[in-house]
Amino acid sequence: MDNFMFYSPTQFVFGKDTENEAGVYVKKFGGSKVLIHYGGGSAVRSGLLDRVKNSLDKEGISHVELGGVLPNPRSGLVYEGIELCKKENVDFIIAVGGGSVIDSAKAIAAGTLYDGDFWDFYCGTKIEKALPLGVVLTIAAAGSEGSGDSVITKEEGMLKRGAGSDLLRAKFSILNPELTQTLPAYQTACGATDIMAHVFERYFTNTKEVEITDRLCEAVLLTMVKETPRVIEDPDNYDARANIMWAGMVAHNGLVGVGRSQDWNSHAIEHELSALYDCAHGAGLAVIMPSWMEYVYEHDVMRFCQMATRVFGCQMNFENPKVTALEGIKRFRSFLHSIGMPINFEELGAKEEDIPALVEKLGIGDGKRGGFMELSSEDVSAIYKIAAKASV
Amino acid sequence: MDNFMFYSPTQFVFGKDTENEAGVYVKKFGGSKVLIHYGGGSAVRSGLLDRVKNSLDKEGISHVELGGVLPNPRSGLVYEGIELCKKENVDFIIAVGGGSVIDSAKAIAAGTLYDGDFWDFYCGTKIEKALPLGVVLTIAAAGSEGSGDSVITKEEGMLKRGAGSDLLRAKFSILNPELTQTLPAYQTACGATDIMAHVFERYFTNTKEVEITDRLCEAVLLTMVKETPRVIEDPDNYDARANIMWAGMVAHNGLVGVGRSQDWNSHAIEHELSALYDCAHGAGLAVIMPSWMEYVYEHDVMRFCQMATRVFGCQMNFENPKVTALEGIKRFRSFLHSIGMPINFEELGAKEEDIPALVEKLGIGDGKRGGFMELSSEDVSAIYKIAAKASV
Repeated sequence: MDNFMFYSPTQFVFGKDTENEAGVYVKKFGGSKVLIHYGGGSAVRSGLLDRVKNSLDKEGISHVELGGVLPNPRSGLVYEGIELCKKENVDFIIAVGGGSVIDSAKAIAAGTLYDGDFWDFYCGTKIEKALPLGVVLTIAAAGSEGSGDSVITKEEGMLKRGAGSDLLRAKFSILNPELTQTLPAYQTACGATDIMAHVFERYFTNTKEVEITDRLCEAVLLTMVKETPRVIEDPDNYDARANIMWAGMVAHNGLVGVGRSQDWNSHAIEHELSALYDCAHGAGLAVIMPSWMEYVYEHDVMRFCQMATRVFGCQMNFENPKVTALEGIKRFRSFLHSIGMPINFEELGAKEEDIPALVEKLGIGDGKRGGFMELSSEDVSAIYKIAAKASV
Repeated sequence: MDNFMFYSPTQFVFGKDTENEAGVYVKKFGGSKVLIHYGGGSAVRSGLLDRVKNSLDKEGISHVELGGVLPNPRSGLVYEGIELCKKENVDFIIAVGGGSVIDSAKAIAAGTLYDGDFWDFYCGTKIEKALPLGVVLTIAAAGSEGSGDSVITKEEGMLKRGAGSDLLRAKFSILNPELTQTLPAYQTACGATDIMAHVFERYFTNTKEVEITDRLCEAVLLTMVKETPRVIEDPDNYDARANIMWAGMVAHNGLVGVGRSQDWNSHAIEHELSALYDCAHGAGLAVIMPSWMEYVYEHDVMRFCQMATRVFGCQMNFENPKVTALEGIKRFRSFLHSIGMPINFEELGAKEEDIPALVEKLGIGDGKRGGFMELSSEDVSAIYKIAAKASV
């Protein structure tokens, strides 16, 4: 097992009606002037924004607001948020929404206390300070409520890049599964796919003998395999929603990746799809991840057999392990298909002729991108090609 | 799923040589005058205490020390520690040791900032403040490095009682698996038993449909079933030690119990054994827990079948589930026996004739003690009787 650091200091407040406690937690963590950051009109229409505001008013905490965060959040609104926070002397940000809103709020939190261009942080500059942040989560997917990561898209060239720091970890995250019950099945399934992908990116490692991390990964995956079809079938199933919402946090606060190398190539390969076509990140992952698996599985057949048997209930073929490995990947893709996810370029709205441009933009050039298996531009091109034509 | 709060703000620093970073983390969390609290001479003889002191010296942090913590830590030394901290204006405590040392340090941390008798906290008084605390862990067992709990024994009447608060959670915990490699097999096995018991106390719940918590519990248990025999066989197996050490933290920082009712009757029943006979807590649990299981399994046969099939690899007997449930319990006891744990009173050094006194001291009286199954004094007496005569 490799040496590691694990630090997840966020206070998680989970369950029904918990959004009404937002004010209490802002106060606990020292906020007195809050920016409420959110996305579209659904948080307004559902009354959620009002409930959050009321909870702040009750504690005597003043607030300003900034809505309009789009999926794959853009730098333009981040600049607007930073300006607003500086002007209004905001000392705490609440993100009311999903991963996009939280990621945008994180960028604003870091950018407000920085003299330069916040985009520097997304080009590798270390974050030295950031405003404290709280979350009221409305979709189980990105895991940003428990992570120190943020992904922002810069409009010029549609560059999608990430930044990370423990300073971007929320002080508190409020997770009420009821808030996710109104989500359409497609978005729910995109979220579930993202959660599973966050685990798989950590599951495929070259570090041996880290059983505890393997088992924790499998715990999340098995939960998703059980619970996702239940919410697709019955969107109001609170317990299934709750299991998925918590699994989404566990999948991405760092716990299921400790002590070993990770991959993250599927995320990088997908990011180019959602940047170019503005498709949902989860949908892009559903197309890319099984295709990546098919391309790399011979790098460690036994690891894929472990996934196949422990997660997807395959019987081990001891005479020919490759059969089991491929059966596991097949079951994963079938599972994604069964919950309504696209599994090839056509279903996603992507075009095979764009593959050279996608590869070019990923920027590997003549080098290789590290991970479970190092990938050249040719490798990535081959993975896109598998994804283009995949079927169940 | 029940509403819950999950808060585990400790910074975990895991791996080889990490004890040399103690000073860096004391500084990070604002300490300038440290009490180093430890147990017997092994921390001195092994050079560990010197390494911790050197790391403090390197950061210019002054320190005093107090050794002598015994297993089942006593109130006498806690009073001594409180006096020392007050006299020396200590503002940070480092516990170098296992659960007993950490629990003693927690009691000192709370007691130093309290005008009354620290024992009040172990009789239900709420902890309002405490000195910040760091840990250098030397045995994987109690999980106190990640929890907000502390158990202390008061010499008068050998009363063993617990206190808990988020204020008692360590600021940082340094976990170097190498430090556990010199532990005798018996102590290693006691620790492993304690870790598994921490999970089982949370696994046996009456709250349905919390799959994610079930699966996380099973992740830890499966890891322990795999790794424990490996360290008993080969004490220097770093990876096995590392898996167990991290599993011990995950088992008890709260994660594997969220969203539902818990049990903890086996711990209470065991505490009377270790208080009366001063046996190792893990050894007492090895005797009590399978006996508790045999007594209560009919309360929820399917839950025990889940344990039997998912954790101990039993085949489900669909025609007679009780057979599977009992087979799982049998395998658990056999497992404990195989790693060298006592499984009955004689092997533990307990006496059947003491049962009435043990029951009396638990203090249930004519009432019932809540949990997975509510237990009367008669129930507890019956469990002790099973434990007295258990065999594999």
